[in-house]
Amino acid sequence: MSWGPARATFSIFLTLEDIKKASEETNNVSPILKLVSEARSKGYDNVCLPLTTDKWRQRWTEMCIQTMEGDDHKHDMVAEKRAEDWRSGPAFMKDEVTMTRLDEAEGITVMISEWLELDATDDWVRHDAEIALRQEVSYASYLNIQNVILPPPRNRSHVASYARIVSSCLRNTAFLNFSIRLPIYNPSFLRAETPASPLLLSGQPDTSQSSALPTLLLPDSAPQSILSTPEGEVNATWEMWDVIRSICDYDTRLTLALDSTLPLPKNLDVLKKWAAEPIRHIYTPASAFITNTKGYPVLPKPTQAFIRDSMLAKVNAGLHNRGGEPAYAQYMRYLEKTSPAVQAEQRTGTVEHFAQGYHDYLQAPLQPLMDNLQSMTYQTFEQDPVKYAKYEEAMYRALLEWPATTERIVCCIAGAGRGPLVARCLKAAERSKRNTQIYAVEKNSNAFVTLQERKEKEWGDRVKILFGDMRQINTPEPVDILISELLGSFGDNELSPECLDGAMRFLKPDGISIPSSYTAHLAPLSSSKLYNEARSGHEQKCLETPYVVLLSAVNILSDNGGGLRGQCGPQIQECWEFVHPRRDVVLDSRGLPLTNSHNVRHAKLNFHIPHAGILHGLAGYFEAVLYGSIGLSIHPRRKDQVSKDMLSWFPLFFPIKEPLYLPSNSELQVSIWRLTNERQVWYEWHAEAFLAIPASSIVASPLSGVSGGRLGTSVSSASLPIASPLPSASALSPLVDAVEPFSFRFQGYHASGAGTSSEVPEVGYDIIKIGHTSLHNPGGRSNWIGL
Amino acid sequence: MSWGPARATFSIFLTLEDIKKASEETNNVSPILKLVSEARSKGYDNVCLPLTTDKWRQRWTEMCIQTMEGDDHKHDMVAEKRAEDWRSGPAFMKDEVTMTRLDEAEGITVMISEWLELDATDDWVRHDAEIALRQEVSYASYLNIQNVILPPPRNRSHVASYARIVSSCLRNTAFLNFSIRLPIYNPSFLRAETPASPLLLSGQPDTSQSSALPTLLLPDSAPQSILSTPEGEVNATWEMWDVIRSICDYDTRLTLALDSTLPLPKNLDVLKKWAAEPIRHIYTPASAFITNTKGYPVLPKPTQAFIRDSMLAKVNAGLHNRGGEPAYAQYMRYLEKTSPAVQAEQRTGTVEHFAQGYHDYLQAPLQPLMDNLQSMTYQTFEQDPVKYAKYEEAMYRALLEWPATTERIVCCIAGAGRGPLVARCLKAAERSKRNTQIYAVEKNSNAFVTLQERKEKEWGDRVKILFGDMRQINTPEPVDILISELLGSFGDNELSPECLDGAMRFLKPDGISIPSSYTAHLAPLSSSKLYNEARSGHEQKCLETPYVVLLSAVNILSDNGGGLRGQCGPQIQECWEFVHPRRDVVLDSRGLPLTNSHNVRHAKLNFHIPHAGILHGLAGYFEAVLYGSIGLSIHPRRKDQVSKDMLSWFPLFFPIKEPLYLPSNSELQVSIWRLTNERQVWYEWHAEAFLAIPASSIVASPLSGVSGGRLGTSVSSASLPIASPLPSASALSPLVDAVEPFSFRFQGYHASGAGTSSEVPEVGYDIIKIGHTSLHNPGGRSNWIGL
Repeated sequence: MSWGPARATFSIFLTLEDIKKASEETNNVSPILKLVSEARSKGYDNVCLPLTTDKWRQRWTEMCIQTMEGDDHKHDMVAEKRAEDWRSGPAFMKDEVTMTRLDEAEGITVMISEWLELDATDDWVRHDAEIALRQEVSYASYLNIQNVILPPPRNRSHVASYARIVSSCLRNTAFLNFSIRLPIYNPSFLRAETPASPLLLSGQPDTSQSSALPTLLLPDSAPQSILSTPEGEVNATWEMWDVIRSICDYDTRLTLALDSTLPLPKNLDVLKKWAAEPIRHIYTPASAFITNTKGYPVLPKPTQAFIRDSMLAKVNAGLHNRGGEPAYAQYMRYLEKTSPAVQAEQRTGTVEHFAQGYHDYLQAPLQPLMDNLQSMTYQTFEQDPVKYAKYEEAMYRALLEWPATTERIVCCIAGAGRGPLVARCLKAAERSKRNTQIYAVEKNSNAFVTLQERKEKEWGDRVKILFGDMRQINTPEPVDILISELLGSFGDNELSPECLDGAMRFLKPDGISIPSSYTAHLAPLSSSKLYNEARSGHEQKCLETPYVVLLSAVNILSDNGGGLRGQCGPQIQECWEFVHPRRDVVLDSRGLPLTNSHNVRHAKLNFHIPHAGILHGLAGYFEAVLYGSIGLSIHPRRKDQVSKDMLSWFPLFFPIKEPLYLPSNSELQVSIWRLTNERQVWYEWHAEAFLAIPASSIVASPLSGVSGGRLGTSVSSASLPIASPLPSASALSPLVDAVEPFSFRFQGYHASGAGTSSEVPEVGYDIIKIGHTSLHNPGGRSNWIGL
Repeated sequence: MSWGPARATFSIFLTLEDIKKASEETNNVSPILKLVSEARSKGYDNVCLPLTTDKWRQRWTEMCIQTMEGDDHKHDMVAEKRAEDWRSGPAFMKDEVTMTRLDEAEGITVMISEWLELDATDDWVRHDAEIALRQEVSYASYLNIQNVILPPPRNRSHVASYARIVSSCLRNTAFLNFSIRLPIYNPSFLRAETPASPLLLSGQPDTSQSSALPTLLLPDSAPQSILSTPEGEVNATWEMWDVIRSICDYDTRLTLALDSTLPLPKNLDVLKKWAAEPIRHIYTPASAFITNTKGYPVLPKPTQAFIRDSMLAKVNAGLHNRGGEPAYAQYMRYLEKTSPAVQAEQRTGTVEHFAQGYHDYLQAPLQPLMDNLQSMTYQTFEQDPVKYAKYEEAMYRALLEWPATTERIVCCIAGAGRGPLVARCLKAAERSKRNTQIYAVEKNSNAFVTLQERKEKEWGDRVKILFGDMRQINTPEPVDILISELLGSFGDNELSPECLDGAMRFLKPDGISIPSSYTAHLAPLSSSKLYNEARSGHEQKCLETPYVVLLSAVNILSDNGGGLRGQCGPQIQECWEFVHPRRDVVLDSRGLPLTNSHNVRHAKLNFHIPHAGILHGLAGYFEAVLYGSIGLSIHPRRKDQVSKDMLSWFPLFFPIKEPLYLPSNSELQVSIWRLTNERQVWYEWHAEAFLAIPASSIVASPLSGVSGGRLGTSVSSASLPIASPLPSASALSPLVDAVEPFSFRFQGYHASGAGTSSEVPEVGYDIIKIGHTSLHNPGGRSNWIGL
């Protein structure tokens, strides 16, 4: 199962009307085969059609609904007997289904009967809808159908029952793929707000084209999201999806068929959450199209943008005044071609082009210190058009710090690999007209062969190559500029700090390190895809190991909002920094640090979460200052300013074992540690979720004796302590209770001014905890980097 | 590791002062051995003492704190070198520890240096405190010490770091038990509120007796519970514990040492949450005692009640004017003896007496339909003094419904086992002076031998015994009263509904079933113990199987509050009911139901959660109406009225795989299903958590263009739709955008009146979802009951 850019196929949705019409036109030939062949000739890849006919709906309704109607749900025992007979052996009559033959069903996506209310409030309707669903799914399997679209959930109060039924279908089938049809947001919002508006008419589906608009019933008595804002609308729809896929344990055969029937809001921020979900179909009825000045069907701009961003579309045929039916498919192809993601992939030199096939593909981070890299690996990274140019510029500017008259500037490339930095250092020396001596240190014995060859053929005496680990060998002389490329996706995660600690021995006291510093950055993310990919390793440790991955079907959950108390940082936050050279480290006689304590780090970050979502992990990025204003960055908001089109690093992904639900407007506190012992370095991570709620919502404590009132108004009657115990005649035993020298009641009081700390939370809000994750990778149990 | 009633041991806490004094008195002999011997003679079971001396504190402070002080944390490189030497090989000097010999340390509980700030705000202090802790733990292990008490966490903002360090200690030791010292609630509350009150002085520990009162620092800038109410106080302390044990993954070697130094609130409701936690020690300094009229030390009443309820105590010696030191230990023994739990256990005929050893012990529910029970099992249940009396009374009253002149009343015991109901039926017949014919049906071939013997020796012709399954055999004649005892802890969980469906064939149309109905009930619970017990089976399915268990170290999380919107039910809620005989079932020619659909059930329950807690599972209970007003109940609030001292059923426990955090004043929605196929019956369960927050706390939607304002005040400027597309010169291509026929902004509006349902939520509150569990036991995968 895959989703993502550049995989769109277009299907036509055929209605019972279409089939009936075709049936009248054909005699012995199957109307379905005729319609499929026509659809292909109109440019559609696939066909989607209902599995059952109105006859089935009629029989089911008679058996399961009408028997219950009338006075006081009085049961008609004859009809009830029919229903029980059906329940004990559910079966179709021939004219209740649209297809009977394998060749008709080949490649078809079927719509399960849309009128089945799997989340009906009535227990019996739900029960019988479940039996009918199993019957339809079983029949679809019999016809070797691969993809079915389920009727939309309509009732937040019983979505758990809907989900349980779907989970049961997934368990009872081996290969069938299920898509849940869902509106992108809740249409009942518009209906409730502007009942007489023509918008609704244009937003209403043409019922001859699509059988029923999925509508969400407003909730009944149960706790549910109140559908009060567009935010709430989107959340209500997504929240139902989240319940369903959670109850189905993120089954990869369960996907979404998003219904874009209704006009979308212009600001798509609130829709970003769908990017993290497995959208398999986008349902776009003809009624969703509008007419451009030439009379051709086009989509409203927000819908265009949403579909371009998703790029997996399913169109419904219909009629606009120009272009005929092929116009719909042509238009969708046009949207696909103009999708930024698709366009970027086709442009050489872009990360997207370079990275084709790597979207959401989890890789174990390199451990170049422990493992000797392959020549192919070096070759891949040497292709980066930006990184080495930045290094050359940094070296050039560093060399300029020395007067042109300087006799000799000693440069050392610590970890030279196959020599790309050596070559750049030579160029920088030429450009700066500085006389340099270059030492190239490399511990990979295989790469050292390449270095020998390049020295012999290209570099000559300007470069001296030294074989060995930079933490152990010595340069023949002290070094002015130490250049290294030891950075990982998270900055320090390939042990650059520890390696450079070892190399600082040969840097002169006023020498320069390139890079001079680097920082690690984190953001919370949601992604069904990455969660499932990380889980697919089956071992527990797979969910406690960071991965290198090109993030694609991902939604960053945080924004730049400060939260209700203004204490949250930006969308992506800095964890820590390493600076080289570091002067305050205690060294042993060899010049090496006595302990690695100075490379231990901890960060506690507060993120504001504007829209409800599921935390599946953390995205990790780095930024580095090479020299002066020259840097490298994979920080999504800054990389284009700092080092546009740099290819060498995908982000790091720290998974979260147990998906954590984050409500709209919540705060996420992430703790991350970089820890070390004598042999290893590893990260541990943990998160807690909080909500800021107005203090007035806190009901007075039961201890105060006042219930239901506002806390601020509850006054306690604290008795003053009585200093001397009163005598009591009944106090005869040594174990008899004392007359207690004080009695008091706790007094409800407000947060403001109560703290002893100077950073008292803002008046009027209470922060309450709502959840947490476990500690990930404790003790480096699941993942560590060898020193 | 076990905790619970009747296991209290009393320890004396020795201070450095005590040791110093003893040291002066002894010369060659170990002062520790002398003190231990003295403590034993004073009636204490154990001794608790600090592991390290002030010398260690002094050296550590000089190394790790003082080097950082002065201007701008300027490092003194000489001191820093000392610290690095220590970090690279942490070791004690002899006079830095209180014990050096194995015999001194035997049986001792040690206090780790209380001044170690494992949750300091300063990264270096925290780092060095961790090294010191490891050093102390390592030394304690060397001395073969089994139990250590850790310094209290003091800083909510860095409790995750504290917890990570503890988790690392647990991982690096194999047998050592760790207790976290914690105040029962947060003393900073009192300090902040009544700074000049004498309470504080009396509440303050005598520093010569206990080295440092664990105080909680008020939180710094991070999200945290604001310490505004006693509720908040207790939650703040418990919340820290919860973070610690969660990060330590509920390690069974991690327990609590609760500090009862401070006076407790009189209403102990808010303290109930500690019942669900692994309390190993209760720390009660002499300063917590008050003097009764005779001058003896006694505890304030709330503290008495709390300790009686917990009954695992640790006392600290001190001096009151009467009784001398032994008075403390004697007093604590007295509290133990007067604990209701301990007293009930000692009284025969109580459930507590009968159930000794069964506290929190998980048992698989019986499957009497699939498995033939052992004679011992029958014997155990036949001991119940209440259940059979209730049955006899029900049968007696049912028989009285027939006129005394009735020729013959036919009774059938369906599932007679070894015959206890047969005997009671005979008694009821005698008492009612009704002429009865009794049939006893039993499918357990082994029990049938016992029945044959009893018929021969006791019952004679008044009883006919029939061998076979009640769903298959026939009685020789129709039956007036059908009596069965097929109920499980959850009512229907031993398939009483299905078995009685089978037996209804031989009941006359106006016949009576005893029981006539039964209901299943649920309540959400928290229990570290049960969670760990259920997990200890190691298989995933262990956490998806219901268990029969005598609930002990458990806190029921719900109360009778209706929640902010008044839509929550009582603390314990009814799920569903079964009624016998049921007349509306469609039967086949044999008189058996065509399908089992009528025994499918679903319940959706809303619980109000007054105090923050962790959901670890659901407690299941049943109530049954035998006949008329005669019933059976294990419902905690009603069992004493209905069937006091009935022993046969412990509650059912439905575990939750992933502990779910529930904040104070939240709502929990539980869904539970009773499902069936042709061969099996099983339960599935799922929960979602919600918070009701005032609508004013919702920030205006980003879509509305108004940020930060109150939603109710944001007014949108909805443009009216433009019906006819405007012509545009640039619209040349068929793919060019339309001039969109409408443009609008979503309008923020309030929940009240927005719903289409008649049950509109109360004005002013929004319900937001904050979390959910997975679906448990889907498809009966982990647990089912065979039909």
